[in-house]
This record gives sequence, C-alpha cells and structure tokens, in this order.
Amino acid sequence: MLGARRLLGALRLCSSVSCPRPRATAKLRVRDALGVQDASGECVTVQGWIRSVRSQKEVLFLHVNDGSSLESLQVVADSSFDSRELAFGSSVQVQGQLVKSQSKRQNVELKAEKIEVVGTCEAKAFPIKYKERHPLEYLRQYPHLRCRTNALGSILRVRSEATAAIHSYFKDNGFMHIHTPVLTSNDCEGAGELFQVEPSSKIKVPEENFFDVPAFLTVSGQLHLEVMSGAFTQVFTFGPTFRAENSQSRRHLAEFYMVEAEVSFVESLQDLMQVMEGLFKATTEMVLSHCPEDVELCHQFIASGQKTRTYAKKQLPNWGVDLQTEHEKYLVRHCGNIPVFVINYPSELKPFYMRENEDDPQNTVAAVDLLVPGVGELFGGSLREERYHVLEQRLARSGLTKAYQWYLDLRKFGSVPHGGFGMGFERYLQCILGVDNIKDVIPFPRFTHSCLL
Amino acid sequence: MLGARRLLGALRLCSSVSCPRPRATAKLRVRDALGVQDASGECVTVQGWIRSVRSQKEVLFLHVNDGSSLESLQVVADSSFDSRELAFGSSVQVQGQLVKSQSKRQNVELKAEKIEVVGTCEAKAFPIKYKERHPLEYLRQYPHLRCRTNALGSILRVRSEATAAIHSYFKDNGFMHIHTPVLTSNDCEGAGELFQVEPSSKIKVPEENFFDVPAFLTVSGQLHLEVMSGAFTQVFTFGPTFRAENSQSRRHLAEFYMVEAEVSFVESLQDLMQVMEGLFKATTEMVLSHCPEDVELCHQFIASGQKTRTYAKKQLPNWGVDLQTEHEKYLVRHCGNIPVFVINYPSELKPFYMRENEDDPQNTVAAVDLLVPGVGELFGGSLREERYHVLEQRLARSGLTKAYQWYLDLRKFGSVPHGGFGMGFERYLQCILGVDNIKDVIPFPRFTHSCLL
Repeated sequence: MLGARRLLGALRLCSSVSCPRPRATAKLRVRDALGVQDASGECVTVQGWIRSVRSQKEVLFLHVNDGSSLESLQVVADSSFDSRELAFGSSVQVQGQLVKSQSKRQNVELKAEKIEVVGTCEAKAFPIKYKERHPLEYLRQYPHLRCRTNALGSILRVRSEATAAIHSYFKDNGFMHIHTPVLTSNDCEGAGELFQVEPSSKIKVPEENFFDVPAFLTVSGQLHLEVMSGAFTQVFTFGPTFRAENSQSRRHLAEFYMVEAEVSFVESLQDLMQVMEGLFKATTEMVLSHCPEDVELCHQFIASGQKTRTYAKKQLPNWGVDLQTEHEKYLVRHCGNIPVFVINYPSELKPFYMRENEDDPQNTVAAVDLLVPGVGELFGGSLREERYHVLEQRLARSGLTKAYQWYLDLRKFGSVPHGGFGMGFERYLQCILGVDNIKDVIPFPRFTHSCLL
Repeated sequence: MLGARRLLGALRLCSSVSCPRPRATAKLRVRDALGVQDASGECVTVQGWIRSVRSQKEVLFLHVNDGSSLESLQVVADSSFDSRELAFGSSVQVQGQLVKSQSKRQNVELKAEKIEVVGTCEAKAFPIKYKERHPLEYLRQYPHLRCRTNALGSILRVRSEATAAIHSYFKDNGFMHIHTPVLTSNDCEGAGELFQVEPSSKIKVPEENFFDVPAFLTVSGQLHLEVMSGAFTQVFTFGPTFRAENSQSRRHLAEFYMVEAEVSFVESLQDLMQVMEGLFKATTEMVLSHCPEDVELCHQFIASGQKTRTYAKKQLPNWGVDLQTEHEKYLVRHCGNIPVFVINYPSELKPFYMRENEDDPQNTVAAVDLLVPGVGELFGGSLREERYHVLEQRLARSGLTKAYQWYLDLRKFGSVPHGGFGMGFERYLQCILGVDNIKDVIPFPRFTHSCLL
C-alpha cells in the first residue's frame, strides 16, 4: 500500500487540470455578488431560482436566490427579455454586469445581458405560492419543497452555521472528535426508551441474532466518550441520538442531535460549567455574526407569530422530587429570564455514574443543568464517579454490577476525576431562533407525511 | 421568548467568572508543552498517564502522555519521588519547571517539583503490557482500553483531524451542511441491505407501527441532499450509514461514515471530479501537516507489518459486466499505482437516478468512480437525471413510478442539472493510513466482544 504522501503526490500528477473547461465569465454565488464593494461592471454569471418578478414598461426586475443568503440578487433586464417562463420558482442562469444599484434597497445589482431559463416551474402544482407567507404547519406537509422558502432557508443556514461553530469551538479548545457508535447494546442506563435494530425481514435469519446481542440505537454517547477520556483528556461527539417516545410533542423527536463532551482531570463542576458556557457563547456569537439576517427573520416572523404559551406559575417541588419543564421555566423567569445553572441534585433521582458529593445527610450528586429561557433544560452534565469502591457499591445497590463490570474495571487502570455534559442541538436552535415546534428546526420533518423520504 | 442577542447578553452578565478557582500554575497539554520554544523554567502543571518509567540511581525519568500527541513529555524527577505507584498506566499530575532538555531526543522536559499519583494501575489485570507492541487483532478484544496504545491513539487522532478537515473543506468552499435523516422509509434504491427499526419489545404496541410506514436505517443521504440541492446550490452531509451485510470482511462494516455532497448547476462530470479531487487533497494535506508523526507510525508499524495480499492479475471484464474490487485494484496498478477516475458506466448496471448520456447505442450514464491504491473504489458519484420525461420513462421501466413520484415531481419546479458523490470515510482512512482491517479505523470495534459497549 502506498504511503499517504506518495499517494498525494500521485494524485497531484494526474490532476484534472489537464481537462480545462471554457468559462466565459466568473460564476458568483449570490452571497458573494451581494458582498462586492464598489461594483463597476464586472462580467459575472449567477445561477439560482426566481423569487420575484416585476415587469415595468421598459425594464424587468428579477430577484434570484441560490440559497447562499436570505437576500436575493436583483437582476435588471431590458423588457425584451420578458417571457412566461421567467416566473416565480423557475431556475435561471443570468450573465451580465455587476453594477452599483440606483436604489437604496440594495448595494449591487446585475445588469442582464443574457438570461437562460434552466428549468420552468408549474405554478399551479407548486405548493409554495408567490408572495405568500406560509405557516410552518402548512410547509411541514411538503418536506421535499419547503427548503425553497425564506423561513426554512434561514433555519437551515443557521443550523449549518451552528454545526460548523460547534466543531470549531471544540477544535480550537483542544478537544478530540470521536464518532461514538449509533448501533450499541448499551442503553446508557435509562436515559430513554430504546429502538431495536434488526436486518429487514427480507434477509432475517430465524433463531439467530444478526448481532451477538440485541442491538439498539444509541440514546447517548456518554459511556463511549468516558472510555476515550481514559486516554485523551478532552473529547467530544456530535451525532444523532434516538428515543422511542411516541409523543406528538413540540419538544421531542425520535431522532435528534446531541453535542456531548467529556473532560478528564476536572476539579469541580465549575470546570464543566466553563466549557458549557464557552460552547454556548462561542456558537451563538458565530451564528449571530455570520447570519444575523437569518436570526432576525426567525424572530420577526416566526417567533412573534407563535402563540405564547403561558404556564401556571408553580412553586418548586419539595426536596427529592424532580424538576419538570414547567418548574425549569419558572426558575428561569424567577431569576429574571436569564440562563440559570442548577447544581447538586438528590442522589436517588440520578443514574449510578454521577459522582457522590460528600454532604451526608443531604446525599447529593455533582450534577449540573443549564436552563435557558423558553426552552428549560438545554445542557445536562455531571462529574462521573471515578472512585472504584464508591462506584462498586453504587452498582451493587442498583443490581447493575454484571452489566457494568467493564465500566467499573476502567477505575483500576489509572482512573482520573472526569465529567461531561450533553446539549440537545435542536433545543439549542429552538432557543436561539425562538422556533416553538422542534420539527421545524430539522431538515426533514419525518414520518408526518406520505412521500417516501 | 428572548431574542438570541438578549440571551447572549444575559449569559454574559451571569457569567461564571464570579466563581474563580485558585490555579497555582498554568495547566498545559502535553502537545503544547512539547511545542514551547526556548523553555526557561516556566512553572507548569501537566496531567496524563505514565507511558514509561526509568529509574536511575539519582534520577527518575517518566514519560507522560495525555492523548494530545503521539509523543510523551519527559518528566525528570529526583529519585526520592520514586514509588511503586509511579508505574506504567498510572495517572499523574506533575508540577514543575519546563526546561530545555539536555538530550537530543526531545526539545523540552519537565523538572518535577511535585508529583501526584491520581489513579494507580493494576499491572496484572491491565491487558496492555509495558513495552509490548500488541497486534491490532489482540487489541480489538479490549474496546474499552485499546485507546491507551500508541497505535489506536494515532489512528483516532488522524480520524479526528480528517473529520475537522472535511468540515473545513466544505465550509471554505461555500457548501451548506445538512443533517440528512438516519431513520428513513427510503432505501435509496438498492444501495444495500437494510436494517429495520422498531421500538424495543418492552413498549411495542401490537398491530401498529410506531411510525406510519416501516422505518429503516439510512443507506445513503443522497436523495435527501438532492431535495436540498433544489434550494441551495452546494450541500453536503457527513454522517453514519448502515448496511445489513453479515460479512466478516476487512472492507465492510454494519455502521460506517459517509461524506456525501450534491452540486447544482453542474455542466459535466468534470465539475464533480474537481470537488472530489479537492476534498481528497485538502483533507490529506491537513492530516499530513497536523499529525505527520501519527501517519508515520501507522505506515511504519501497522501497514508494514500486515501481510500484503496479492490478487491474481485479472483482465477487465467484458463491456456490460460490473467491476469487482479485484478489477478496480488491477486498474489502479495498471495505471501505475495512482488514483484513477473511471467514468461513463453502462446504463443497465446503474440505478434509475443517474443521468443518461446521449451516446446510443452504447447507452451509458454519467457516473464516476475514483479508485485508489490498496482500497479500490473510494468515491462514487454521478450526474442525476434532471429531465422530467427521461426520468419518467426510466421510472416506469423500473416499476418505481409510484414510490418516486415525489422525486419526479421535483423536476416540475425549476429543475436544474445537478450531481453528487459519496466517499466512505473509513475507506479513506484505510487508504491514507495503510490499515488493512476496517475495524481498526473506527473508535469501537462493535459486536466482536462481550462487554456492554
């Protein structure tokens, strides 16, 4: 097998530069065209879909969008270009000169020299109508077309930007990325209802498991990350997780994304809280600086149009009773509608792996949640029990010694104090965009429609 | 619901800076400590696991590794620090002065002032033995401990670096990231055997599907990306995909990662090939520049130690017969062991969505594979059939009209020429690292062991 360097060298030699294609003019994305300062007649080609058409006596105005930004590029053409096919939804390629716009509504516009309709759009059959603002509920019926609207465009751009920001934050802070398994026999001890996986009926072999043991879809990558935190001091994962909870909730999905991290050699919950806070701030700052107009659109037209659900103001429950979402929201409001860290939960409410505080008779564990306005719990984390004998007793009390022998064993081989957290990615998007229904912040609203997506 | 800006402002106000912790000395990762130029006695703290101990009469040498790099930091201590607990596998925290090393084997070393054993290691029970180079087959038995070895450390660092590089490449080139669904009712038309998903038996409701339709694990995100490419001109996904192929192959996994991209307004296969080539080069260059010693280790100790499988040199099959892996490897060798693009495959060998070339009577489709040394097919891609009537006929011939009505419908609404490709991420890692068994480039070798991972 060739070394990687030789391979790269070889690929360079046989580079496809030997097959140049003629390019008449520079192809520009709409975002890049809009960003040109002091346009002075550069010859460019722009491709995209028509978002609006305005026909005047001698001039034709088109707005062309290619998904690279919320704003479209205004194309100004001689009215001789006008045709039926130049309509809302059609795809076009426009060649022309990029010039300073006369109007204050945009910085630059494209003076068309050539307009080619690439694909026409059947207006009657197209469920997205010109100049209408469709409710998100309506758009959910058209998972294969809703990305053509401003609202979904903005949400998906923010989702993409936030994804990149999360990867950057961890990389910049020395975290190693781990792909924790999706198929696993581990249920992360009651984190939620499980999905089971088997080969589809066509090839099912009777009386035999495809896998050695029943296989489930992961509910959390935590335990796998903990394994890695025994060799790498900072690790993270950002992947799909699953809960078989058949709810029509606005807050839950069968498939959702989770950002999880583990840090070794932590000294206290503060160490974790700093990472949680850093992640939230860095991601939000990057989203706000890279696509402010998309965030703005969500707040202006989506968040404001939603019914503000009011929750009965509740007392907090007695000590030893778990917080419900309503309590979390109450707490956030009580603190002045700001993000709130809640720490040190009663031990009996929490799973076996959380580290016991030395605070008899209160008997708490070092757990931490970050509650945020509108959403409630956004992050959940804890220190993990790294002490062999404490963990051994905890497992025995829960009858889990056999299943978690391997986990206990890790404490024999250079155990270190460690802790970690998880953040639901869709909850994060709901929080910063003010989108009420979680189905609207995922690219495809699954299983709510009949088409085979 | 608060606006994102207000939320960020609020979080800043209630920042955890109000709870400072005393830090005696700067904590440094091993990688950062090793990178200090002209060390001159800086007071630092380093944490990690002991990789080697050498005890001399008056001096004790430790090598401490924290997973941030292949190289460990040498700690030099007075022999009075020596103790049984300072042994291979123990976790330690060392405080001291970073100084220029006397030896040529390293640039800097840490003159210990304080050494704390954080967790001891039971040498007898620890399956990784001091100074032994364990074969990868042996390590696969210990999925929860193998990350403590140099070999897996290097592979996982490269995997993490390549993951970051792939995200960067697409972001830098204006691609939007899409989380395509893992749970889907779509089988991407015979891309592979499917896994079916149901709620685990505990909560199964009889005579009722949890989902409206049978749900499978995705075999490819292509069709979902194609939907998005009707609104965004460049999209990509990088996530898990699944095949229920019960093979003990060195080349296949039930769960593996795939990088997939779609580009709208493509003019020819060349446009796709440029993106494929750009992705391969940018990723490999980033890996080689960020962790050259990890790549080196794999080639020196893993690739070279593996049996070189020799394949009977074969003629290529007749026109109309598909290429097998052996043929692909033959082609690569035939061309001088360099990456090779193969284009324009017979139409009847390929799925309905690939674009038909206008080359009767040859009847090919615009498909492209990139074959690489050692691995064979690394990328596969094609132009997609964007012409309504051609696709309509193709679907009718295959009896798929009903199932793919939604896909055909997309061609009614501003259809554009587009194409895309997929690259198996584990195959890529095998290719650049020279690792023969695909189970060794994933973080956890699943279902080959008894512990509940």
